[in-house]
Amino acid sequence: MERIEHRACFAGWQDVYRHESKTLGCTMRFAVFLPPRAQGKKLPVLYWLSGLTSTEQNFINKAGAQRYAAQHGVIVVAPDTSPRGDDVTDDPGYDLGKGAGFYVNATQQPWAAHYQMYDYIVSELPALIEANFPASGARSISGHSMGGHGALVVALRNPDRYRSVSAFSPIVAPSLVPWGEKVFGAYLGPDRETWQQYDATALVRSTTEKLPLLIEQGEADEFLETQLRPHLLRDACEAAGHPLTLNLRPGYDHSYYFIASFIGGHLAFHAAALNS
Amino acid sequence: MERIEHRACFAGWQDVYRHESKTLGCTMRFAVFLPPRAQGKKLPVLYWLSGLTSTEQNFINKAGAQRYAAQHGVIVVAPDTSPRGDDVTDDPGYDLGKGAGFYVNATQQPWAAHYQMYDYIVSELPALIEANFPASGARSISGHSMGGHGALVVALRNPDRYRSVSAFSPIVAPSLVPWGEKVFGAYLGPDRETWQQYDATALVRSTTEKLPLLIEQGEADEFLETQLRPHLLRDACEAAGHPLTLNLRPGYDHSYYFIASFIGGHLAFHAAALNS
Repeated sequence: MERIEHRACFAGWQDVYRHESKTLGCTMRFAVFLPPRAQGKKLPVLYWLSGLTSTEQNFINKAGAQRYAAQHGVIVVAPDTSPRGDDVTDDPGYDLGKGAGFYVNATQQPWAAHYQMYDYIVSELPALIEANFPASGARSISGHSMGGHGALVVALRNPDRYRSVSAFSPIVAPSLVPWGEKVFGAYLGPDRETWQQYDATALVRSTTEKLPLLIEQGEADEFLETQLRPHLLRDACEAAGHPLTLNLRPGYDHSYYFIASFIGGHLAFHAAALNS
Repeated sequence: MERIEHRACFAGWQDVYRHESKTLGCTMRFAVFLPPRAQGKKLPVLYWLSGLTSTEQNFINKAGAQRYAAQHGVIVVAPDTSPRGDDVTDDPGYDLGKGAGFYVNATQQPWAAHYQMYDYIVSELPALIEANFPASGARSISGHSMGGHGALVVALRNPDRYRSVSAFSPIVAPSLVPWGEKVFGAYLGPDRETWQQYDATALVRSTTEKLPLLIEQGEADEFLETQLRPHLLRDACEAAGHPLTLNLRPGYDHSYYFIASFIGGHLAFHAAALNS
């Protein structure tokens, strides 16, 4: 593991690391914000999963989360969105291959060789963080769009490993929308039954432990009706008796201006769960 | 004038416009943040001048200023850093030509045809803003690096037009450092006397009106000793009896992580002057 960026930020440090991932079989980068309180004290960690075409840079450059993470004493870890490198399979589309790992374990070739993002996020990355940083072991998870889908799936399948989950503009039912149908078909094959383990709306029906769940959605989001469809998750949560706070925000779109406007509330939400 | 971006942000709007600049003889873009209070009320304006290689996008994407501008009820205008377009002279270096207008009126060819950024910032842009937005006419100005230099020069030469001036990591004495010597030689010619009108350290010695002046400087800034040299302005302010608050911040570098960490204090500083 090698530190490749180290920048003072809100009295803490915004760092970026490079490491060899065994799960993914390639060199990966992740960003870590260490709040000022990290000196000498173990702190909870919020994982942030980014959306299509992103790297570890987008969130740390644009969301303005460091201010709130410093205030609440939360470490924030932002991984990349897919395996990387010259020997990793890619696709010309922005919504498949590099930058579009979709946080699943691919079972189909040529993808299965490297595209194991689910295991990377659930197991390898937290183990690495907790071995090398002042992390207490308390975890929460959030993300945007494809990363909102990832956060929901990871938390709903592992409620014992996370204290809370939130998402901005998530793809809540990937099995039913074009982005998900394309990538699940490629990564998981044509059997739609296998897709359900990565579909938050399907998962919420069967989960027994019920984590605090917060969703932020802009009503002027250009992908709202075609790809995101938050009402499908709302209906499933109501049917399953799963708690959900769904904030619909008039006028806001799919961009980081939306995330920046409400990330403070999400940090407060996670800090309350992490520090309880 | 045409609006080309319009995004909800902190209950206001982060917009980008395109217009034909008579001063620069080309199509220019600028960003405008309109805080929520802008509806039906005239508000003061903070102008932000960006640094080398930037466009109107960098500050609005990375600084997180919208939160504070919304809170204080200040419109924030961020122009581009040079004339643009295929018929505008450029240079292969990142520190001359496009993205490096240095906020001067060039007198030397081939630059003089378009590189009139000083007049654009002082006259054309404020007139455009005050004719088309709910701007009260009260102005302040700030900027980063090359834009910090620009803010200081524009305010020191026009103290009647601005209420306050601040800068992050400014080039305070361009006549004496490599960046300034290169571009002033190109834009203004070899007579160093003509450079003094664009050198904040020279200007502060002769200004009579004394604006509130705040400078933020990271002590781990990679350009601190070679290009920025804030002690030259501090010494000139002391000799001239000009007020100056110079905040030296240990550990911080030249990046937007530094700006984001302290932009809230600068918005508060300008809001106090603008609303007094």
